[in-house]
Amino acid sequence: MARRATTVRPSVGQYLIERLQDHGVRHVFGIPGDYVLGFYDLLSHSPIKVVGTSKEDGAGFAADAVGHAAGAHAVHAGVGVGGLSVANAVAGAYAEKSPVVVITGSPGMRERRNDPLLHHKVRTFATQREIFEKLTVAAVVIDDLDTAYRDIDHALAACWKHKRPVYIELPRDMVDKVPEHPYRRVDHDEPGDPAILAEAIAEASARLRAAKRPVILADVEIHRYGLQYELITLSERTGIPIAVTILGKSVVSELHPNYLGVYEGAMGRDQVRAAVEESDCLLMLGTFLTDVNLGIFTARIEPTRVIEVTSEKVQISHHRYHDLRLGDVLRGLLSAPLPKRRRRAAKPARPRAAVAVRDAPLTVTRLFSLLDARLDADMAVVCDVGLCLFGAIDLTIHKGTEFIAPAYYTSMGFAVPASVGVALANPKIRPVVLVGDGAFQMTGMELSTAVRQGLAPIVLVLDNHGYTTERCIQDGPYNDILGWNYERVPAVLGAGWGALVRTEGEFAEAWARALGNRSSFSLLSLQLRADDHCPALVRLGQRMAENLVATPPAIGRRRRR
Amino acid sequence: MARRATTVRPSVGQYLIERLQDHGVRHVFGIPGDYVLGFYDLLSHSPIKVVGTSKEDGAGFAADAVGHAAGAHAVHAGVGVGGLSVANAVAGAYAEKSPVVVITGSPGMRERRNDPLLHHKVRTFATQREIFEKLTVAAVVIDDLDTAYRDIDHALAACWKHKRPVYIELPRDMVDKVPEHPYRRVDHDEPGDPAILAEAIAEASARLRAAKRPVILADVEIHRYGLQYELITLSERTGIPIAVTILGKSVVSELHPNYLGVYEGAMGRDQVRAAVEESDCLLMLGTFLTDVNLGIFTARIEPTRVIEVTSEKVQISHHRYHDLRLGDVLRGLLSAPLPKRRRRAAKPARPRAAVAVRDAPLTVTRLFSLLDARLDADMAVVCDVGLCLFGAIDLTIHKGTEFIAPAYYTSMGFAVPASVGVALANPKIRPVVLVGDGAFQMTGMELSTAVRQGLAPIVLVLDNHGYTTERCIQDGPYNDILGWNYERVPAVLGAGWGALVRTEGEFAEAWARALGNRSSFSLLSLQLRADDHCPALVRLGQRMAENLVATPPAIGRRRRR
Repeated sequence: MARRATTVRPSVGQYLIERLQDHGVRHVFGIPGDYVLGFYDLLSHSPIKVVGTSKEDGAGFAADAVGHAAGAHAVHAGVGVGGLSVANAVAGAYAEKSPVVVITGSPGMRERRNDPLLHHKVRTFATQREIFEKLTVAAVVIDDLDTAYRDIDHALAACWKHKRPVYIELPRDMVDKVPEHPYRRVDHDEPGDPAILAEAIAEASARLRAAKRPVILADVEIHRYGLQYELITLSERTGIPIAVTILGKSVVSELHPNYLGVYEGAMGRDQVRAAVEESDCLLMLGTFLTDVNLGIFTARIEPTRVIEVTSEKVQISHHRYHDLRLGDVLRGLLSAPLPKRRRRAAKPARPRAAVAVRDAPLTVTRLFSLLDARLDADMAVVCDVGLCLFGAIDLTIHKGTEFIAPAYYTSMGFAVPASVGVALANPKIRPVVLVGDGAFQMTGMELSTAVRQGLAPIVLVLDNHGYTTERCIQDGPYNDILGWNYERVPAVLGAGWGALVRTEGEFAEAWARALGNRSSFSLLSLQLRADDHCPALVRLGQRMAENLVATPPAIGRRRRR
Repeated sequence: MARRATTVRPSVGQYLIERLQDHGVRHVFGIPGDYVLGFYDLLSHSPIKVVGTSKEDGAGFAADAVGHAAGAHAVHAGVGVGGLSVANAVAGAYAEKSPVVVITGSPGMRERRNDPLLHHKVRTFATQREIFEKLTVAAVVIDDLDTAYRDIDHALAACWKHKRPVYIELPRDMVDKVPEHPYRRVDHDEPGDPAILAEAIAEASARLRAAKRPVILADVEIHRYGLQYELITLSERTGIPIAVTILGKSVVSELHPNYLGVYEGAMGRDQVRAAVEESDCLLMLGTFLTDVNLGIFTARIEPTRVIEVTSEKVQISHHRYHDLRLGDVLRGLLSAPLPKRRRRAAKPARPRAAVAVRDAPLTVTRLFSLLDARLDADMAVVCDVGLCLFGAIDLTIHKGTEFIAPAYYTSMGFAVPASVGVALANPKIRPVVLVGDGAFQMTGMELSTAVRQGLAPIVLVLDNHGYTTERCIQDGPYNDILGWNYERVPAVLGAGWGALVRTEGEFAEAWARALGNRSSFSLLSLQLRADDHCPALVRLGQRMAENLVATPPAIGRRRRR
């Protein structure tokens, strides 16, 4: 526990800004409400950049994406009405472990006397905090000047440690108040018990030494805790190949010789499925055992062959070690005596330069092939849910942090606002957005924010005329939506460039023009048939027909093969 | 407590649909998620109309507006991610007493064993219900077949009684299950204690008899409980004039001779303010004492002269009667011996037919004058917050249910999706939407739903280039937004008609054309100066300068004059 003493006393608002900067926050996304204007004014005179979005949930998704992309904290500042509007985005950040700080203004402490019905109030002044307590790892109201500094430190430390959202509510009359007492900054970062760590490492490394076909299955926590280097070093030193989950896609370069591919039960490629499920020692690193990650319950993994290491526990077969840090365990394995194996996974083929057939109608399968050949090292694929996500399983992502999707929480409408966060977090990266028509209708107009920020994402709207994933499960008129002329959105925003794409030839041309358009967004409205599915969905259908897995009773790994 | 016995046993899903119909529900607004598809299929084969919106919050606002407009229940069906996306709209319905039933699908009971990480899950399977417990008067999960019917009855009865949202969560494998036991429907509607009622009526009517200048201040509960007839009868029999709050605007026809106008402290007209604040017996009926209703704390009402009757209590001076129903009290007053007074309020002038000055740039003041002269009896004004709302105070609303605004909770982006609910609730009514540019950027694309439903709202976008209300409080670059070409939205939606309006002449022409366009929406992009405020905001500024009310410590009525 490091302590720094200081004698200068900033106001509550200034202190919060200082500490956000200490934690690497460079952007605040949000919409100013009347209760937060004072803090906004402080922010706008600070080095932190204030990014106004069109809607609060757009701010939430953008902040979430900064957490995904940069591993650094991101912040949303909302207020009252705005606060509850980000509930869904914050829930997604909680579920997928993205460090988002929700800052909300609220009525001043003086105004709260006699419990008046101030505007934006729901039930009591505590209602909003009580709700965010369910969606965050810390929810504090800065209502006491004596504990203000400490409460801010506590919340930010929790965000940092757990990589999950926290909630800080600032009554508007507290922003400019200065605490009377000096304080000590407290940074919490406690290592685990060395004896527990040693025993866990000893057992895990013994199992890895004894294994004939060990495989690593890497997931999203590797990225959140910045352990990509440790992961690839472990693989290179031991020769153990790496598969990833869809949520963890892109934690390693997909061109690395030790890379196997995306494991997603029956929905992934057969070669990857066999390597993972037939391994006699599966080292799962930073995994989320979600249904989507497990190929909607088609995974067949035998628990007694698994070593599962996450930020919450180390589980070997049926027993667990607690209170260990993911990084400590990974570094412990790196120091352990493990043999270097010669056997390597077959190197995945670099995607061939798919040639567009000029007049061929665009299909989902061909779209992903054409795209795969065109993705470049300076691009990030920002993916919405549904067909986009299942199709993107087969895309080849070239290096560390370049595939971003809400693959567990699967919140429709994530991708367009998220691309704003991705581009701001790393200006060298150009977002390629994959988004369905239904999802675009939810948040696509957040391109307005991309225009204001001078960003140039390439947005591919997969227009297949309705909610395709739902159609696969059960179809009805409720899966229809209005057909928009997506390519005309630039006319409304007064910026950007749009094109209607029906054939492979038109796709190739439009892509080339979009690449050259670095001054604003490019939107390609890709016309696809409503019944055209991606290969992963087809594989899932085949496998489910074979196995008759209709309503699976529990997650796959709990069932024996 | 009425009981009806029945021997036919419907499935859980069928029963819910039957009971919704019993409560007058005719529409379900929402987006089908995978967990709710089974229930959606039942709905789509029922007499209830399924209305797909572009986004979940649009569904929430539309349902809220049906609650505002029709006084009947409205329903939103969401699921998981969708559920939390309506949190803000549901909070608004709670705050403003609108009966909205939130129906959400969720993972089946069988799937929940061993607590797997199913997609859309935040923390535990209970997280979403726990959140909605804070935002509703009843939150139930239909997880027990033995109590399923009763739990549905309980939730709907609570919605009906309190005119506030309830939450019903349907695990997807419960929808088609049929309970084994017969049941008795229970409809709760308990009258209060007649002795309490008699004492309250006696005291209130004695005060009214003794008063020299009694005034009624009517608010939104009159509308929610369908007591408009009782209100106007009381006023006509006794000659007591009626003022309304902004939230209650349109509970009486604004052309009625007993109508005084909108009371909103210093923000309303001076004549109305004087009549209300100088009354020696102010009968407040169904009031919400909110800061916006009270003119941001500029109200000066002496509590000892007040009789306040709401669904929650009757308060006379400083004492209270509890457990009485608003309707019973109102009907009690109607039966009480009260004198008929001759003295009447001055009849408010019917707005003159404001003539557009052809080349005069449009201003906020003139806009509302021009609009006031053009509003018709078959129109409903659906109003967003900010300048629109303050400006609309002075509009003349012609009869019962035709002004709808989130005047207490003040959620930006309410109006466009709400207009869909208003038009569906009463097809004879044509919505006139007043919405600022910032609010339109949040939810304006929900016009997509108006197109799908064949509705023809007239949408006036007050484009003053940013967040004007915020600019009045504290200005900075964070109050700027991107300038959209709102009039080109029809090009994206492939329907509707749009016009750019800069002058009074262009307004008059565009309005006439919009009136004639009955096949789709009309959107008028009204170009206003960023520093052009409405008369109500100007009045507020003057009054606040006089009184030096900077940060008011408590609501106005608690302070003595």
